[in-house]
Amino acid sequence: MIRAAAACSGGLLGRAGAALWCAATSRGFAAAGSAAAEPYKVGLIGLGRMGARMAPRLLDAGHDLVVNDSNGLAVERIREIGAQHPNGSVTVRDSPAALAATPGVGAVLTVLPDPASLTEVFTGARGLLAAPGGLRPSLFINISTVDPDTARRLAERVARAQLAPGAAPLTASGRPALLDAPATGGVAGAEGGALCFSVGAADAADIGAARPLLRVLGSHITHCGPVGAGSVAKLCNALVMSSTMVAVAEALALGKRLNLDPAVLTDVLLSGSGRSWVVEKNNPAPGVAADSPASNGYRPGQQVDQVREQLLMLIAAGERVHSPTPMAKFAEEQYRVLHDEGVGGKDFSAIYRYRYGSGCDNAEWKSGEQLFSSQIP
Amino acid sequence: MIRAAAACSGGLLGRAGAALWCAATSRGFAAAGSAAAEPYKVGLIGLGRMGARMAPRLLDAGHDLVVNDSNGLAVERIREIGAQHPNGSVTVRDSPAALAATPGVGAVLTVLPDPASLTEVFTGARGLLAAPGGLRPSLFINISTVDPDTARRLAERVARAQLAPGAAPLTASGRPALLDAPATGGVAGAEGGALCFSVGAADAADIGAARPLLRVLGSHITHCGPVGAGSVAKLCNALVMSSTMVAVAEALALGKRLNLDPAVLTDVLLSGSGRSWVVEKNNPAPGVAADSPASNGYRPGQQVDQVREQLLMLIAAGERVHSPTPMAKFAEEQYRVLHDEGVGGKDFSAIYRYRYGSGCDNAEWKSGEQLFSSQIP
Repeated sequence: MIRAAAACSGGLLGRAGAALWCAATSRGFAAAGSAAAEPYKVGLIGLGRMGARMAPRLLDAGHDLVVNDSNGLAVERIREIGAQHPNGSVTVRDSPAALAATPGVGAVLTVLPDPASLTEVFTGARGLLAAPGGLRPSLFINISTVDPDTARRLAERVARAQLAPGAAPLTASGRPALLDAPATGGVAGAEGGALCFSVGAADAADIGAARPLLRVLGSHITHCGPVGAGSVAKLCNALVMSSTMVAVAEALALGKRLNLDPAVLTDVLLSGSGRSWVVEKNNPAPGVAADSPASNGYRPGQQVDQVREQLLMLIAAGERVHSPTPMAKFAEEQYRVLHDEGVGGKDFSAIYRYRYGSGCDNAEWKSGEQLFSSQIP
Repeated sequence: MIRAAAACSGGLLGRAGAALWCAATSRGFAAAGSAAAEPYKVGLIGLGRMGARMAPRLLDAGHDLVVNDSNGLAVERIREIGAQHPNGSVTVRDSPAALAATPGVGAVLTVLPDPASLTEVFTGARGLLAAPGGLRPSLFINISTVDPDTARRLAERVARAQLAPGAAPLTASGRPALLDAPATGGVAGAEGGALCFSVGAADAADIGAARPLLRVLGSHITHCGPVGAGSVAKLCNALVMSSTMVAVAEALALGKRLNLDPAVLTDVLLSGSGRSWVVEKNNPAPGVAADSPASNGYRPGQQVDQVREQLLMLIAAGERVHSPTPMAKFAEEQYRVLHDEGVGGKDFSAIYRYRYGSGCDNAEWKSGEQLFSSQIP
């Protein structure tokens, strides 16, 4: 293992201001309330579009990773990156249980695509909680977007689990704990270390223990309340973001058919009460924002189907507490059109093309060649 | 009349940087393309919530106003302000026709509540175009929000009208012209001179002639295209703003019922992909944003019924060009609930209380005392 001082000299840290950044992000030492103050390894389960982009950042910051994913190719890619990395190493484990039994692993990040796979990673026959001899890690940070009930249920299971004899806990209580820390910002945020974490925690002190890791990956950490509150915040953010996208796409498409250039309308929206992240950073009209998914073939970004799943989770959460969610239901219906067209894997801004391009002849619409050709008479 | 140099010493202009501001906003001299370069009076028709807030700013900037409104009380208020104002004067005319026949009036601003009243102001029996002896003003700047067809139709009528003999035109063509210059920013924007104008003009040079007046009232001027394009942009902005509000209200209400503080959720939204003007400046949860309508009894701001009318105009414009507007229709339905509850005069952010508070007992809901009392079990 590389010492923190060495970590500070390489990768992302070789910059002006590195010393300050190092102080906040040098790899973990056990937090207040725990006995030992030794560097720990970081478990990372889930090497999909988000997790695969987090791993290099964690290595750059000097963390040694112990990874697991059911996708062998994804594992190989990270193993290769680790083999050549100057700051951190990558060790592969063939199950979450084996990962959780690995000596030196203090914290585990889970980055799974849905509640079912996250639940399997924790409670499956070869899940984290089935670690032979008890859990080595004590701090579980779930970055996957799940419904609040799943987050709470897993947190209860984790709180009842046993640490392995001799494991040095990072949590304030000295017992295993799960933090609910879903992230907004998508693939671009994961790549740039600009994710925003909304965190739920049974014990606020545990957020302090998680902070050095989260700060490697993100720019904002908001403590939302107890476990589950982070997921509520994430789903609410998804509702606002995805509904705003429907409105912006509808407005830009209508404007275009009325001979108003999407770039000009974007200027109007950004100058006043139509301003939003969606308009500025994820503008759905190709060519308006240079780095947007729309300007890159609607490569996600945040996939239509993921956005839909989050809306469905939010709708279910609303039903449980009798809170009306007509907008979530409406927005989900709009994105379902894209799913039914077979483009559920594209960025959610593709709604501009595949929902609002539909005034054109169908063949033209699909080819996109003469998109929005029906101009004002 | 007060000379421009005097205007610069008083009111809003008595500040650091006044010289620079003066250069841009000193009262109008005829624009390039016209013969004379003399100060002109400004006509202002419509002294409602928006117009009444524009008048003092125009006086502060040294403009002499000639006003008309069918509401005698509104006229009296502005007359009194004018009587005591050090920089500018107020003259009252009892009809748009009389206003347009007043010597020295170069430009006319119209700030009416709807397309019908704007049309009446221009084409009615005592309308602007019925000015005895022809039009004294040449530059008509319509700030009212109307459908693009109404804007285009009136612009055509204005272009065919005759100037009075000896009137010094401000327009590039030397003929009367109407600019389509609806504003976003609502009452707060009008009060603070922070409106954003989306402008349509047959001749872009006329925007230069209008700019000194618009800069007294606003912070952004975007040239959108020919006449009508400004209205399209305004309606599209209204769609985005009002739909975002529905989503934000739904998210904050759901979060509250799931024990997530609206202020905390607001922090999460603002830190990432849920960011918008609505969340930041017009947050619908009381107490979250200090100066928001929600924190002031939902005093508008932008009235529910005005937002609804704009959505209906947009839907009609969409139907003409076969552009789908499901979001506009959905949002209009949500705001209609408020109209039906008799709160169409409140700020549109009141949807948080009157649409999303409806999970509670009806009496509590209406009193608002135990709003959102149905918490998570």
